Amino acid sequence: MKEVTGGVTAAKGFVANALSCGIKKPEATRLDLALVYSELPTTSAGTFTTNRVRAACVRVSQSHLRRGNVRAVVANSGNANACTGAAGVAVARKECSIVAKNLGLKPGEVAVCSTGVIGLPMPMVRIEPRLPELCQNLSADKGHDVASAIITSDTCEKEVAVEISIGGKPVRIGSCCKGAGMISPCMATMICLVCTDAAVARPDLESTVREGVEHSFNRITIDGDMSTNDTCLVMANGASGVELAPGKPGWEDFTRALHYVMMEQAKHIVQDGESVTKFVTVRVEGAPTQLEAKKVAEGVAKSSLVKSSWNGGDPNWGRIIHAVGYSGSRVREEKVDIDIAGLPACRGGVQTTTKSDDLRERVQAREFEVRINLNMGTETYTVYTTDLSPEYVDFNRSEYAYWNQAKQDGLTH
Amino acid sequence: MKEVTGGVTAAKGFVANALSCGIKKPEATRLDLALVYSELPTTSAGTFTTNRVRAACVRVSQSHLRRGNVRAVVANSGNANACTGAAGVAVARKECSIVAKNLGLKPGEVAVCSTGVIGLPMPMVRIEPRLPELCQNLSADKGHDVASAIITSDTCEKEVAVEISIGGKPVRIGSCCKGAGMISPCMATMICLVCTDAAVARPDLESTVREGVEHSFNRITIDGDMSTNDTCLVMANGASGVELAPGKPGWEDFTRALHYVMMEQAKHIVQDGESVTKFVTVRVEGAPTQLEAKKVAEGVAKSSLVKSSWNGGDPNWGRIIHAVGYSGSRVREEKVDIDIAGLPACRGGVQTTTKSDDLRERVQAREFEVRINLNMGTETYTVYTTDLSPEYVDFNRSEYAYWNQAKQDGLTH
Repeated sequence: MKEVTGGVTAAKGFVANALSCGIKKPEATRLDLALVYSELPTTSAGTFTTNRVRAACVRVSQSHLRRGNVRAVVANSGNANACTGAAGVAVARKECSIVAKNLGLKPGEVAVCSTGVIGLPMPMVRIEPRLPELCQNLSADKGHDVASAIITSDTCEKEVAVEISIGGKPVRIGSCCKGAGMISPCMATMICLVCTDAAVARPDLESTVREGVEHSFNRITIDGDMSTNDTCLVMANGASGVELAPGKPGWEDFTRALHYVMMEQAKHIVQDGESVTKFVTVRVEGAPTQLEAKKVAEGVAKSSLVKSSWNGGDPNWGRIIHAVGYSGSRVREEKVDIDIAGLPACRGGVQTTTKSDDLRERVQAREFEVRINLNMGTETYTVYTTDLSPEYVDFNRSEYAYWNQAKQDGLTH
Repeated sequence: MKEVTGGVTAAKGFVANALSCGIKKPEATRLDLALVYSELPTTSAGTFTTNRVRAACVRVSQSHLRRGNVRAVVANSGNANACTGAAGVAVARKECSIVAKNLGLKPGEVAVCSTGVIGLPMPMVRIEPRLPELCQNLSADKGHDVASAIITSDTCEKEVAVEISIGGKPVRIGSCCKGAGMISPCMATMICLVCTDAAVARPDLESTVREGVEHSFNRITIDGDMSTNDTCLVMANGASGVELAPGKPGWEDFTRALHYVMMEQAKHIVQDGESVTKFVTVRVEGAPTQLEAKKVAEGVAKSSLVKSSWNGGDPNWGRIIHAVGYSGSRVREEKVDIDIAGLPACRGGVQTTTKSDDLRERVQAREFEVRINLNMGTETYTVYTTDLSPEYVDFNRSEYAYWNQAKQDGLTH
């Protein structure tokens, strides 16, 4: 497997376009509307937020995927089209219809992704007139533009593309994604688009996508907040001429490559979390069940006190074990071992003889691992997370600028 | 019912003392070791943290309460005596023994409470020699000193005392408590000591204390972190000459007064949370079950994004409904109504015509209510919470100073 350039359009038969519509600010010039299109029919699979409050775009994309496969995805940043009621659903459907008409597809063959502020109507006055233009001048060179158009508070584009060789033929998987805030297990506030030129039957694609998401996007948490808009969409168009199926040659290589792409993107999201200064892997071992391993890992990864201490470069195993204790898992305090950045910090629930200066020096690094052994069984679970910084809170204090803009647009009161 | 002064020793037959031992810093002069003593035998009830990692003092106090009633409580701040293993339990037992000996009690008649940093051994070298002195010069005037000695990052003492009249006789309930960080439902990082001169049989006292805690301390959250040390201890010594029991005259008045004291203290804890600028009441109505009402209220009250927006004076109902959606309760987005500070912000899952400037003006207040109606049933639940401030994170970045001190004391490495 080798990494290649090209992002979401790295695989054969995928083209894209992106425009600047001023969805956030009318005068702005940054890309905020994007289209990815497969020149061939696809099989498609998607996983979506498990939040009971689902954005209109998620509802429409889910309904389209339930009925068939999609060949195009229209995506925007700046407005999440969430909590916008029946009008929001109508807007999302209209986007699909217009794009479908311009590409010669059925509306059900178009998926729609939105990310941005929740609760404001979509500024269709700016989006709708630009959709025909978006469907023209599609090119395989514009993968990077799509990656730019979907990011919000992300500080960089997130692209991963790989090539594997199966029976002497190259097969590619390309992707772009966005993350930043509102990141919690069970799909984060993210959009991830993955395009491959392998040919994969839909049920096989669905199951390997589910498995990949479970081990990547569902294992990351930044602020513990689960978004209304999370979407991971995968399209396989067979342009490579390589047909893949479980048990056939190349399947293992393909799934490994697909899961690699998802895991890399999940890590990119964490590393680029809002005002993040640390990337921390929380690995729980020795749990009686996997569910309990998960509860412990997420309990630690979501604790404001633990995350604040990481921000301060303070190893503070005491706060870690206190979060282990309230995680909801069976825990016997006197059995808990904690290693921080490779050094034993706690054994049997009490401090070790490791010098606190040594521990402290290790957690000055940008990336480190916290390993917790409950010594109650054999199950494990790993979560990728971050610190909590004063800057995160400061950044999220107000979205009032969006409301002011929306007021000027006549979209709110 | 009238409020009276005197704090934890406001009720007849309770005396106290407090000393400065330098538990945090040897040179410091602030009070950090306290004793409350009932001159008469008591009936006692306590509720404790449900964290699986329990401080040594909690284990010892629980064991003493299981076997009988307590007449004295020794409490310290600066060190939580948590995650200190068998040595920590031995230390807590030793404190009880020394106090018991000096007061002519059995060790099992003494409870012990500690609050402060987790994971460091107790500096017994400083505490032990002072315990005999602590048991002398006990006075009913020193309730306020106890309130001072148990606070940590609290900015003020927390005392509530009330008097009711039953059959023409005055009955008093006095209390002090501490809170600050690590505050989450199912007992917070708090110590609350309540002393009453009513005579109440132990089972009756236990059940009314449980009920009071359920509606007060279990309904507050600051940072979602549940401490290892939470303790609420209630002693009733009968010095008023008034015997109370369910169904008898005065019982309703007494329980109402006791629950009032607990609720006031719970609110004090929230109002004085670490670096808190807002006191927010999250009231959920129309839930199908009380458990689901609770999940929604706690989901909203614990969301970092929601709390950050409150810090910024941003009403942001979109973030509130997104937290409602991931709370784990059954929710139908199109039925959700949200009022913020008395104004309708969301109806049927979408924005109202309320002017955003009006909403914004209302949430500039230090206290306001968020009222969420799921319109799915009749159950309700209320949680008292705060904003999340950059200063909270900054304050909790490092406890390294404690470790440095402990190193100098030879208590860590």
